[in-house]
Amino acid sequence: PESKLPDVGTSIFAVMSGLANEQQAINLSQGFPDFNCPEPLMQLVTKYMHEGHNQYAPMPGVLKLREKISLKTDLLYGYLPNPDTEITVTSGATEALFAAIMAVVTPGDEVIVLEPCYDSYAPAIRLSGGTPVYVPLSLPDFSVDWDLVKSRISSRTRLLIINTPHNPTGAVMTKQDMDTLANLLDGTDILLISDEVYEHMVFDGQQHHSALQHPGLRERSFVISSFGKTYHTTGWKIGYAIAPPILTAELRKMHQFLTFCSVTPLQLAIADFMDDQQHYLTLPDFYQAKRDYFCEQLKGSNLEIIPSAGTYFQLAKYDRISDKYDLEYAKQLVHEIGVAAVPVSAFYHDKTDHKLLRFCFAKSENTLKAAADQLKKL
Amino acid sequence: PESKLPDVGTSIFAVMSGLANEQQAINLSQGFPDFNCPEPLMQLVTKYMHEGHNQYAPMPGVLKLREKISLKTDLLYGYLPNPDTEITVTSGATEALFAAIMAVVTPGDEVIVLEPCYDSYAPAIRLSGGTPVYVPLSLPDFSVDWDLVKSRISSRTRLLIINTPHNPTGAVMTKQDMDTLANLLDGTDILLISDEVYEHMVFDGQQHHSALQHPGLRERSFVISSFGKTYHTTGWKIGYAIAPPILTAELRKMHQFLTFCSVTPLQLAIADFMDDQQHYLTLPDFYQAKRDYFCEQLKGSNLEIIPSAGTYFQLAKYDRISDKYDLEYAKQLVHEIGVAAVPVSAFYHDKTDHKLLRFCFAKSENTLKAAADQLKKL
Ligand SMILES: CSCCC(=O)C(=O)O
Ligand SMILES: CSCCC(=O)C(=O)O
Repeated sequence: PESKLPDVGTSIFAVMSGLANEQQAINLSQGFPDFNCPEPLMQLVTKYMHEGHNQYAPMPGVLKLREKISLKTDLLYGYLPNPDTEITVTSGATEALFAAIMAVVTPGDEVIVLEPCYDSYAPAIRLSGGTPVYVPLSLPDFSVDWDLVKSRISSRTRLLIINTPHNPTGAVMTKQDMDTLANLLDGTDILLISDEVYEHMVFDGQQHHSALQHPGLRERSFVISSFGKTYHTTGWKIGYAIAPPILTAELRKMHQFLTFCSVTPLQLAIADFMDDQQHYLTLPDFYQAKRDYFCEQLKGSNLEIIPSAGTYFQLAKYDRISDKYDLEYAKQLVHEIGVAAVPVSAFYHDKTDHKLLRFCFAKSENTLKAAADQLKKL
Repeated sequence: PESKLPDVGTSIFAVMSGLANEQQAINLSQGFPDFNCPEPLMQLVTKYMHEGHNQYAPMPGVLKLREKISLKTDLLYGYLPNPDTEITVTSGATEALFAAIMAVVTPGDEVIVLEPCYDSYAPAIRLSGGTPVYVPLSLPDFSVDWDLVKSRISSRTRLLIINTPHNPTGAVMTKQDMDTLANLLDGTDILLISDEVYEHMVFDGQQHHSALQHPGLRERSFVISSFGKTYHTTGWKIGYAIAPPILTAELRKMHQFLTFCSVTPLQLAIADFMDDQQHYLTLPDFYQAKRDYFCEQLKGSNLEIIPSAGTYFQLAKYDRISDKYDLEYAKQLVHEIGVAAVPVSAFYHDKTDHKLLRFCFAKSENTLKAAADQLKKL
């Protein structure tokens, strides 16, 4: 049969993790921690399973979890979303992204996407019948050129997708970015998806600026986050979307036919564990220390470190070492020095090659040191 | 904004379970057990969590689980699918259905759907740009009129969806049904989705006939099943799809952008627990006893029991008691006698009312007796 997504192959994350496992390389490619989630969180899962909470959750998510998300949102961003009408728990942020895009993009619509970007945005847009309109972030710091964004808006623009903190570059939007964006969208009916899954990984005293904090943005936004990133449980697939009631209603229509609900004992456990505010309040320091450790260990290498202001990713430029295409170079590194990274071209629709590799530093110091020692050999 | 699914409301399962909880009624509406999953299965989840298996699973599913699914398929249906190229683990059968439909239905395609049917088929078809072509099952036993099916096939027919054992009616396809279907599709390039999530609930010595057993069907089929039904874990959201490599490749393209992967410790636990063949081999008897108990307790009621040959659902006709529309009558029962059921009209696109209610008998004998005692008051 003809393919619905003819130019989509296996995702780069599956490819590089597969290669890393095969070659027993140190895997800094796909974004996930190599340390375990908090012990009390697992104990809560066990408790809820044994209490019999193993059947369907309510379609929008366990109420207690939605209430905790609401309270946390108020605490952090000064906005208290209604758990009944504005919060939906999904099977990971990936499902939330797909559901939000599928809910609002109709055939003929254009969606503005800032590149490089996560690889699920464009397929979801195309499966919805829409067309991605790509706007490159500006080198060298991957900031947004809002005038360029403005120039790409047309009468068919239905949606714009932002991601802050930004995967893969580690760039973080400033308050001024959010204000400029709010001005840009003012008076239009363009919707916004704000992918904020790394909201708790912003470094060097900077702040995360959520679309939820910005009147003018909040009313038109799906704000998406992920417990997998925050609680070191990327394999639990619990994410969520916050959106105004009218958008939430449409998103839930998709969610109920995509997965119907997410895993019940995990939702209940996370709801209880959210009372531990220390966990997420200390996360920036926790990950900043890892970033700093990794960069320190890399001193003296021939890689050029591109500053990372957020996420658990670090970019490095290798053009002083090789002029190979980044995908080829990433594969070569696995074989040559036993370290797996993600080539940044995978985040561009046309596979733009900036000679950049992305390293995930959500790893133990031992892992980071071992990887850096190998990378210094280049 | 205009809705992508304007005539879709909240699913009947969420509506009736919500009403049941609100009114503290006995909930025989949404299909899930009121007893817990096996203790050793939960212990395995705890073990794998503590061993640190909390990060992303491989996109197609944990290999060990796919291998176990392959062996079980061979044991039961005499066909050994390749775990690498023919089996995909999904976030529940719901995601598998959506992914399969989205993978192969393109704008303008027609999809033949036998009614009554599960409420996610048609929205998935419409979101893919296709048109559902509805063929009613034949009363009184909800058998398939294959001549009628044949008459609805056109040059635009891309896909046909069957479901055996059948939700909500409990009808089970015979070998002759499957043979007739194979003949019907022979020489066409029409694909098949065979929704077999209740494969282990076939009663009275009858056999489940899987599309995987039928050369002629297997080569064109996505066969979908669900561990939630088999292991009393509807809230764990682990399902799977078996399909030929070319179809699996397209389904995985969808899966990787819908949810990417399913929950890791649950997949690992189920893989180990699958060694206990007794669990699923005794499931028909386990559920047949529940069906028989429920029907026995209903003796003397004014409801007319429609024989159920499979699934954990029992239909009952109430036309001797009331001529109310079934949705209204189902709501009335919650308030009047504290028992929640699902109105069968919810499974018809045009809400056809046969004065039928669906009761889920995946419940303890206490629950079934309490419900029957109330229903006898009608
Ligand atoms: C779902 S696999 C991709 C994980 C991730 O977010 C990344 O590595 O960028
Ligand atoms: C996903 S909720 C619906 C459960 C079910 O399969 C049913 O009740 O028919």
